Amino acid sequence: MEQNLCYHTYVGINCGKSMSLESYLTGYADGEGCFCVTFNRSKRHKLGWEIRPSFSVSQNNDRSEVIRAFKNYFGCGSIRRDRSDKTVKFETRSIKDLVEKVIPHFRKHPLISSKRKDFQVFAKICEKIHRQEHLNSNGFKEIVSLSSQVNSSGKKRIPRNTIKI
Amino acid sequence: MEQNLCYHTYVGINCGKSMSLESYLTGYADGEGCFCVTFNRSKRHKLGWEIRPSFSVSQNNDRSEVIRAFKNYFGCGSIRRDRSDKTVKFETRSIKDLVEKVIPHFRKHPLISSKRKDFQVFAKICEKIHRQEHLNSNGFKEIVSLSSQVNSSGKKRIPRNTIKI
Repeated sequence: MEQNLCYHTYVGINCGKSMSLESYLTGYADGEGCFCVTFNRSKRHKLGWEIRPSFSVSQNNDRSEVIRAFKNYFGCGSIRRDRSDKTVKFETRSIKDLVEKVIPHFRKHPLISSKRKDFQVFAKICEKIHRQEHLNSNGFKEIVSLSSQVNSSGKKRIPRNTIKI
Repeated sequence: MEQNLCYHTYVGINCGKSMSLESYLTGYADGEGCFCVTFNRSKRHKLGWEIRPSFSVSQNNDRSEVIRAFKNYFGCGSIRRDRSDKTVKFETRSIKDLVEKVIPHFRKHPLISSKRKDFQVFAKICEKIHRQEHLNSNGFKEIVSLSSQVNSSGKKRIPRNTIKI
């Protein structure tokens, strides 16, 4: 991960100072970022469910500079275009990258809005998965329960109380 | 305006370092901020039109911390709740505050996305108004012309080619 990068280099300005790209990206993510935990039924997974945490940031195609800045900064994830709604999205799904790159960033440069609470629960879930706790029944149930606190004001595609193992 | 404020104070963390609230707010504004120039017919104004530039940032009621951070930081503007769509908005309309507080901030801590171009034209318009150039016919026409470049992808409530003096 790039450290102490002067973000002015992104806008072609030789400012002679070191501005904080880290804080800029946190601010952007506080508005436009999403910490998500989704569940999918899966025969391939031990308990019948795949748990997929992700961090993503979307933007209109015509303002995709910031999306590239996220990918460059974190050095992981992917960028996808969604032609249907003309957006471009940066997304990281790898548990290793989430635990080693994304989560440490937002601990060091915290969100100001109450999205911070979503992040804190999200981080807890990712760390449990990283320690493979989702593979045993108690760990899995704890993660399901925690996940209901992430973006709790939004509607869940799969209501948490329907996830049984 | 607060300078070199550690934004961790906003989240109750004693980090022992100085993080950049300035860069955070620029990042947030790059996603959620709006530089607008609106025109309203007005008999009170010399050329029959009121020109109203504004900088605003909106957020859901339940995540209004950042909106308060903008007001505290800039030391100007107002916060309004819009009960219809459950948002809260920080807005600055005063030309003096825009020219003396908002514009210098975004010059020092520039936006990364192409919203920066909107800002640059917006700044030019505000400075013209501050120098009272909008009160003469040529200056007014120049401002109308420039304003068509701000948020040019969005639809204008009053199409610029219908603004005649």
